Amino acid sequence: MKKDIVRSCFSMLGASMLGLALCAGAVAATASRAPLVIKDQGSLIAGGTVISHPGAFDPYHPMKPDGQTYHGDHVFAFYQIPVDARPLPIVMWHGAGQSSKSWETTADGREGFQNIFLRRRFSTYLIDQPRRGDAGRSMVETTIKPTPDEQLWFNQFRIGLWPNYFDGVQFARNPETINQFFRSMTPNTGPFDMEVLSNAGAALFDKIGPGILFTHSQGGGPGWLTAIKSRNVKAIVAFEPGSSFIFPEGEMPAPIPSAFDTVQGAAVPMAQFVALTKIPILVLYGDNIPDHPVDLPAQDSWRARLQMARQWRDAVNKHGGDVTLVHLPDIGIRGNTHFIFSDLNNVQIADLVTKFLAEKHLDR
Amino acid sequence: MKKDIVRSCFSMLGASMLGLALCAGAVAATASRAPLVIKDQGSLIAGGTVISHPGAFDPYHPMKPDGQTYHGDHVFAFYQIPVDARPLPIVMWHGAGQSSKSWETTADGREGFQNIFLRRRFSTYLIDQPRRGDAGRSMVETTIKPTPDEQLWFNQFRIGLWPNYFDGVQFARNPETINQFFRSMTPNTGPFDMEVLSNAGAALFDKIGPGILFTHSQGGGPGWLTAIKSRNVKAIVAFEPGSSFIFPEGEMPAPIPSAFDTVQGAAVPMAQFVALTKIPILVLYGDNIPDHPVDLPAQDSWRARLQMARQWRDAVNKHGGDVTLVHLPDIGIRGNTHFIFSDLNNVQIADLVTKFLAEKHLDR
Repeated sequence: MKKDIVRSCFSMLGASMLGLALCAGAVAATASRAPLVIKDQGSLIAGGTVISHPGAFDPYHPMKPDGQTYHGDHVFAFYQIPVDARPLPIVMWHGAGQSSKSWETTADGREGFQNIFLRRRFSTYLIDQPRRGDAGRSMVETTIKPTPDEQLWFNQFRIGLWPNYFDGVQFARNPETINQFFRSMTPNTGPFDMEVLSNAGAALFDKIGPGILFTHSQGGGPGWLTAIKSRNVKAIVAFEPGSSFIFPEGEMPAPIPSAFDTVQGAAVPMAQFVALTKIPILVLYGDNIPDHPVDLPAQDSWRARLQMARQWRDAVNKHGGDVTLVHLPDIGIRGNTHFIFSDLNNVQIADLVTKFLAEKHLDR
Repeated sequence: MKKDIVRSCFSMLGASMLGLALCAGAVAATASRAPLVIKDQGSLIAGGTVISHPGAFDPYHPMKPDGQTYHGDHVFAFYQIPVDARPLPIVMWHGAGQSSKSWETTADGREGFQNIFLRRRFSTYLIDQPRRGDAGRSMVETTIKPTPDEQLWFNQFRIGLWPNYFDGVQFARNPETINQFFRSMTPNTGPFDMEVLSNAGAALFDKIGPGILFTHSQGGGPGWLTAIKSRNVKAIVAFEPGSSFIFPEGEMPAPIPSAFDTVQGAAVPMAQFVALTKIPILVLYGDNIPDHPVDLPAQDSWRARLQMARQWRDAVNKHGGDVTLVHLPDIGIRGNTHFIFSDLNNVQIADLVTKFLAEKHLDR
């Protein structure tokens, strides 16, 4: 009975936005009660490099580095394969200061995209990128300081203007939610390095085979490079990619200054760039992004990023690409923060993404 | 048919060692094919502290710490609740330089204790302890250096004497296994602090309710303190606890010097110590631990630790406790490294632990 509701809902996907909206509630209510039936789950590590210290290892003086090795700069992934899985798994890549936690339980305790997409029969790979979380061994020395910065993030992630929440924001307003949200951050254990990250991302796709890549925020940049480095990336859904849009050499747009920073593209040879024109790409941005320059750094930074994202969409599509950029308020979806996939309406967002994957035949 | 084999095997548990040994193969072969049926899964964060920088937050200068907060020193847990779960979940606490990965897929690609105990209908909580992995926000500044040290760990974890493996060691001998094993390490993002760790551990047990605690190596110390701080710890299975055994004040044994370091107990008031006498505790040590002092630091360190563990067992039991210490070679189980739960014979080890939990009525 409940299964039938879910099935009829999915068959409605692709019909209309109204259908999706009517459907989301029923799917959520039903799905939360059904068990997840997992054919296989576990974790794996891909990519990375090794250094060897000169000399000979002396087991009687094991604290000396002589003759010892150090493996680092790999990516860590926790994977789950549901029974009757669709052919293409989804690799979920977190943003700055985040980890695989981004896609798990939301800060207010609902199901995240990990469970939601498992229920829709997609295999999931949740990663900790190199130099983060459980993939913490970095090839570059780093100092981590406990510098108070959470009000910056509250604003930057467009939950509101601290201590006030935006009207209608899709984020639960209670102390435990913000406690869980702030504690979901985890530091870099080495510098952010696009080449290191995308090398590991490509190694992961080489290992697991063809799949779909979801990226969040800062994960967007290494995500584009991963698709350039591995043909196994068959599609990208980028949630608010923050910077490092990849343009062909000679076609870089002018930098876009904002009250927060200056947003710049990154150039690659055309032979590499064309990889981005061969796969369907969906880019989503949430609410409370101003149309015109404003003084407030947190808001203005997203105005500049969205503007750059539109220029990038046009650049890829001009060369034959298939980029769809959706600014959610334009289709009537309001209140989304920078964490679109864990916001209160994340089932509605998952419906939107599922519809995209279906339209592009990535779900079969 | 296959289910029946599993059921009859479990009904044999508690019968005899021979029964267990005969059973393990059948369970492993069957279990690897059966899907995991998960009623609920997700992640949560417990405990921790907050600091607030004096002053007022200025959204126009968000990089200044004034008026901003920093949450840290919490514990992160990924949990899975199977359908028809046994009442007490198992919290799995990693050792030094490790993470939740310890209990997931083994370095050679077999199922770890996460899946094995889910299949036996125990809920599992895999943690990253404070200042580690996805719980990386530390209240204390730390510098992380990529110092080559893996040959030290190869020896210290008793896989062999680098580059040679011990005869009969329960560890797969191929390059990809050692690659995955070394890359499973992830650094501290703050100093190891028993109080910080056990406060977070107790906060986790306060949040999830009564449960069983599995600890590995360095996790042993904060594990004992967690049981002292939370009555929800109903039993402990400690895999090769490395140090920080807790004794009553005035009953501390003499430190035990070794070729690696000196093993010392830690003292608490008797009123706290008695908590450890109220719960069943199983302590397991693997193979290749010498009986008498040897020159090699890696081997001798475990000789001293096992000796201290025996003194600790006697101290707890003298006060009415229920500690069982098993040195696996004494019962004919040979070749185990420091990672007993992920060794090649980890199903046999899981059988031993399952039998203990059944005998202590912790499985119902």
